Amino acid sequence: MTDMTNLTPAQVRELIRRGKITTPTSGMCPGFAQANLVVLPKNLAYDFLLFAQRNPKPCPILEVSDVGSRELKKIAPGADIARDIPKYRVYENGVMTGEYTDVSHLWRDDLVSFLIGCSFSFESELIEAGIEMRHNTMGRNVPMYITNLPCEPAGVFHGNMVVSMRPIPYDQVVKAVTVTAAIPSVHGAPVHIGDPKAIGIEDLSRTDFGDPVDIYPGEVPVFWACGVTPQSAVMASKPPFVITHAPGHMLITDVKNVSLKG
Amino acid sequence: MTDMTNLTPAQVRELIRRGKITTPTSGMCPGFAQANLVVLPKNLAYDFLLFAQRNPKPCPILEVSDVGSRELKKIAPGADIARDIPKYRVYENGVMTGEYTDVSHLWRDDLVSFLIGCSFSFESELIEAGIEMRHNTMGRNVPMYITNLPCEPAGVFHGNMVVSMRPIPYDQVVKAVTVTAAIPSVHGAPVHIGDPKAIGIEDLSRTDFGDPVDIYPGEVPVFWACGVTPQSAVMASKPPFVITHAPGHMLITDVKNVSLKG
Repeated sequence: MTDMTNLTPAQVRELIRRGKITTPTSGMCPGFAQANLVVLPKNLAYDFLLFAQRNPKPCPILEVSDVGSRELKKIAPGADIARDIPKYRVYENGVMTGEYTDVSHLWRDDLVSFLIGCSFSFESELIEAGIEMRHNTMGRNVPMYITNLPCEPAGVFHGNMVVSMRPIPYDQVVKAVTVTAAIPSVHGAPVHIGDPKAIGIEDLSRTDFGDPVDIYPGEVPVFWACGVTPQSAVMASKPPFVITHAPGHMLITDVKNVSLKG
Repeated sequence: MTDMTNLTPAQVRELIRRGKITTPTSGMCPGFAQANLVVLPKNLAYDFLLFAQRNPKPCPILEVSDVGSRELKKIAPGADIARDIPKYRVYENGVMTGEYTDVSHLWRDDLVSFLIGCSFSFESELIEAGIEMRHNTMGRNVPMYITNLPCEPAGVFHGNMVVSMRPIPYDQVVKAVTVTAAIPSVHGAPVHIGDPKAIGIEDLSRTDFGDPVDIYPGEVPVFWACGVTPQSAVMASKPPFVITHAPGHMLITDVKNVSLKG
C-alpha cells in the first residue's frame, strides 16, 4: 500500500472515495481529527441534537450537516459524507442490514449527518505528553465499558454513558487530566479515576466494546466519556433507518487536533 | 423593598412568581448565573438548536426544556419558566404584541424553552479580577453592536454576530482574555480586541443596543460575543410565535457562575 503519512486528509478521502482504501483509519493523517458518523432522518434529528447538547462529554458534536446535504462546510470542505468513509453500517429498526464502502445509493433528502469527536484526538495529545497508550502498545482496540452513569435523556434517546479506559501510572494521572481537560471538544477531562465499581464496572477484563488491556502495579484505571455513547443510545431506540461508520473506519477531517483545544 | 442580597435564587424566583418583583434582575443573587430566554414552537426548535450548536460563542445554551414543559431540571429545579421571570415579551410574526409578568395563559404543548448564558456571569469574574466595568460605573447598560461577522446559518435562522464592548486598560487586556477564556460556557474569550472598524463597527458612540460608554486614553475596546445574537437571529426570521424575557429581566438560576468554568 502507498505510504500515506505524507498525504493530506483530502488526498486520503479521495483514495477512500475511489475505493482504494477500505481499512480502519487509525494512524492515517497524524495530527488531524477523525470523526464518528451518525446519520438519521430529520424527524429524529432534533432529539439527537438535544441528546448531544445535554451530554456534551460523551457526545462532542464537531459538525451537523444541512438536511439532505452530503457536504461538510467546516471540518472537511469538499468531502462527500456518503463516500469518504472506508466502511459504513446501515441499521433498520435496530438490526444491521448491511455494510457498505459507499452509501450514496441509499441517500435520502431527509437525512441529517452528525460528525462526533473521537478519542483518537486526545490520545495523540496524551502520547505527546509522554503517556503510554497501553492498547496501542498491546496492539489492541481501547477497552470500553457501559457504566451505571445515566445520560440525560432527550426525546426518544436515553442510555448509560459508555467510557473508554486507559491505565495511567500514578505519577502521570494529574497530567492526563490536565492535558485532556484542555480539549473539551473531544470528551475533555476524565469522568472517573480509580475504582471501576464506583461507576458500575464489575470486571475490567470483561469489556463491553473493544479489548481488555493489562494494568501494571503502580497504575490506576482512568475513564473518559466515549463517543460510542451516542451510537449506543441511538441503537437502543431502534430507529427505522440509520447509517453509521463501521467501528474504526472514521471520517478524516481537515481539522488539526491542536485546534480542538478550548 | 426587601434586601434581597441574602435570598436564594429559589426565594427570589418565588417573589417574582407572586408578582412581588417586576424589575430588572441585575445585581440580584450575586454569584449565581442569570439566563436569557427564547421560547419557540417545536417546529422551529431544531433549526434554533442547530444555530446555537454552530455558533456557540454568541449562543451558549445552558439548558433546553422538554417539549411543552415549563420545568428546568438542571439549572433551576422547581422553577416555572412561564412565571419566574419578572417580565416577558411576546412576538408574533416579528412584531411585539405584548409584555407580561406571567405567560402561563399563553403556554402551549408545542413550546420549547431555550435558556442561554449571559455576560452578567463573566462580568462578575472580571470584577473579581480587578477590572472595572465602565457601564456599571456610569450606571448604563452595556454597549452592544451588530458586527459584520456572519453567524453560521442554520435552517431559517441567520444573521451577523452581536457583540458587547468593554473598555479595558492596556495592562489588563491579557487578564480580561484569560479570565473570560476560562468560562467558555458563557461567551468565552473576546472575539475582537481593538479597532472597531475591523469588525464593521463604524462609530462606538452609536450603539445598536444598550448605551455608549466613555473610553479613556490608555484603554482599548474589547468585544465579546453577545447573547442578543440569537434573539436577533430569531426576530429576523419573524416566527409566528415567540416568547422572550424583556431586556434585563432574566431568569435567576441555581448555578454558580464559578461552576460555569470549563
